[in-house]
Amino acid sequence: MFQDKDLQRTPLSEIGEFGMIDRIQSSFKNTQPTTQLGIGDDCAIIDYGEKAMLISTDMLTEGVHFNLAYVPLKHLGYKAIASSVSDVCAMNALPQQVLVSFAVSDRFPVEAIDELFAGMLIACQKYEVDLVGGDTTASKAGLVINVTAIGSCDKEKIVTRKGARENDLLVVSGDLGSAYFGLQILERENEVYKVNPNVQPDLRPYDYLIGRQLKPEARLDIIKLLEKLNVKPTAMIDVSDGLASEILHLSQQSKVGFTLDEEKIPLDQQVISAGEEFELNASIAALNGGEDYELLFTIKQEDYDKIKGNPHFTVIGFANDLQAGNHLVARGSNIKIPLTSQGWDAFYQYQKNVKNAEEE
Amino acid sequence: MFQDKDLQRTPLSEIGEFGMIDRIQSSFKNTQPTTQLGIGDDCAIIDYGEKAMLISTDMLTEGVHFNLAYVPLKHLGYKAIASSVSDVCAMNALPQQVLVSFAVSDRFPVEAIDELFAGMLIACQKYEVDLVGGDTTASKAGLVINVTAIGSCDKEKIVTRKGARENDLLVVSGDLGSAYFGLQILERENEVYKVNPNVQPDLRPYDYLIGRQLKPEARLDIIKLLEKLNVKPTAMIDVSDGLASEILHLSQQSKVGFTLDEEKIPLDQQVISAGEEFELNASIAALNGGEDYELLFTIKQEDYDKIKGNPHFTVIGFANDLQAGNHLVARGSNIKIPLTSQGWDAFYQYQKNVKNAEEE
Repeated sequence: MFQDKDLQRTPLSEIGEFGMIDRIQSSFKNTQPTTQLGIGDDCAIIDYGEKAMLISTDMLTEGVHFNLAYVPLKHLGYKAIASSVSDVCAMNALPQQVLVSFAVSDRFPVEAIDELFAGMLIACQKYEVDLVGGDTTASKAGLVINVTAIGSCDKEKIVTRKGARENDLLVVSGDLGSAYFGLQILERENEVYKVNPNVQPDLRPYDYLIGRQLKPEARLDIIKLLEKLNVKPTAMIDVSDGLASEILHLSQQSKVGFTLDEEKIPLDQQVISAGEEFELNASIAALNGGEDYELLFTIKQEDYDKIKGNPHFTVIGFANDLQAGNHLVARGSNIKIPLTSQGWDAFYQYQKNVKNAEEE
Repeated sequence: MFQDKDLQRTPLSEIGEFGMIDRIQSSFKNTQPTTQLGIGDDCAIIDYGEKAMLISTDMLTEGVHFNLAYVPLKHLGYKAIASSVSDVCAMNALPQQVLVSFAVSDRFPVEAIDELFAGMLIACQKYEVDLVGGDTTASKAGLVINVTAIGSCDKEKIVTRKGARENDLLVVSGDLGSAYFGLQILERENEVYKVNPNVQPDLRPYDYLIGRQLKPEARLDIIKLLEKLNVKPTAMIDVSDGLASEILHLSQQSKVGFTLDEEKIPLDQQVISAGEEFELNASIAALNGGEDYELLFTIKQEDYDKIKGNPHFTVIGFANDLQAGNHLVARGSNIKIPLTSQGWDAFYQYQKNVKNAEEE
């Protein structure tokens, strides 16, 4: 009864998630001396003398981030923790604590919550993080989970998205695109199941892809390995939204452009097979698919020898002048395609661009 | 397709929110040396050398915590921040940062989010906290907001729920019950409005009550005042769920019982009037209503002179032996009624108890 009915109505889709974040960020100013870094990186940084605290928060909503028709609650709990602590890793730090809020409707029995937290417990044990708080409430609709992850780090070890410089090498851990194809397969089999619930699909040929989608890992091991190799990245981000989007974040904040070599993007054999099966260029799954939770970072050229030949790392490109922009060098050619990030809708546009560039 | 269809189904209502928290807490063990205090207080405490970080997280869901038919988004934003930083105050500390996640459906235009964050901005400025991070996502259902609040404090100044001792005085700031009646009035007028949208209600006689419901304040001023008066409470909690429930939390964690004097419960004149109008004992609104965000704390008897006569504080009872239990001494009598907390359903049972006790 108090609402202003004359409110203008600009659809959220018109400005998008990042537009909304920019809009919020521009009206808030930081005033606390302990706020070292606010909105705009994987974590905020809070100053505690010699140590800094790193903190990040992530919300997962049913029907948007997960479909309970084929995502087991235990896996969901694991993934909620893994994806959240991954943000702390992306600052070159190790997570230490998490807080978990969740909202559930009546249709969730106690045993379902038990399953969810059983998965969270396994992740907390694996990553050695403590569950130190949270909130539980009713939901009029589906399940909502919010995880806040906290890490601590010596200040001089922190890596943000800002430090990449021209000629730095662009490196990624593990391989990419598998979580995306894992999701495609689960969606497809769920459609089959809805038609005939008695058919149990044979998912063995896709086990790696499905595992990467349902139970991704935060790469704490990579943070430890980098420390051991005495490599401090100049900039870093985790690959949650797809390689293209993350490269553009690093570019924007570090004020450099990137040249990405499509040929070098690390792809598992199952990703390549799935690409053929789904008639989708596997590189596109890596570029725009997301949810791989690998670490994407830049290193100084002089550090190259320290990671050379290490199976955990692939050099996929390098930083160039910001004016030169961000490009993908297409496989088996010298054709440079501007790198864009418009979510999954962009797939088809991108494929068209490649085709056009080849035909020119 | 992977879900276990044979899962046992115990309704959540059978164990309740606190039962669920106990269940989760019992399976998780803290292992990080920086975790000073985990689940079970208003905030978790993380050790950063001389300083400690206090952190709390709260989730608000549409249709459960707020009804957008009569809660303006700007007020909702303010309240989300206020209620969350109140948890930091309850540890005797001042908040410094917040992180805000929210999920919205398509029906929310950009301008609605602007309103929500305009309210958050006013609260952040008033409480001098920085918005340092968050997450924004789509929701298949209503609006969901999660606020994580962070504070910092010298370790020796922290007050938990655990420190109350026998003979300590039980003190509350401000007055109680008004937020509850504010909600009753808004709900009532919303029903009237649904029948005839052209009638604009005259809410002036209830301005204080409605203000307390729609725009509650976190009592940072009380934390500063206690510091100035050189009073360190022995235990503290904020009144979010109603006085009875909070007293029982202090009792459980401090291992003392409490005797609460009904006559002493501070009630605004509008609360008393509303009690008559709604035919509900105003004390019951204070005991079980919640959302007042006042601070409830215990002090040593020797500190009494420091707060005596201060209009911000009311001594409402004292701590006794745990074995003696928790009791309310009913107004104008010496009748002791066991203090229980079962949410708002308990109202009527409680009224019956009082009546029975009087008739005995």
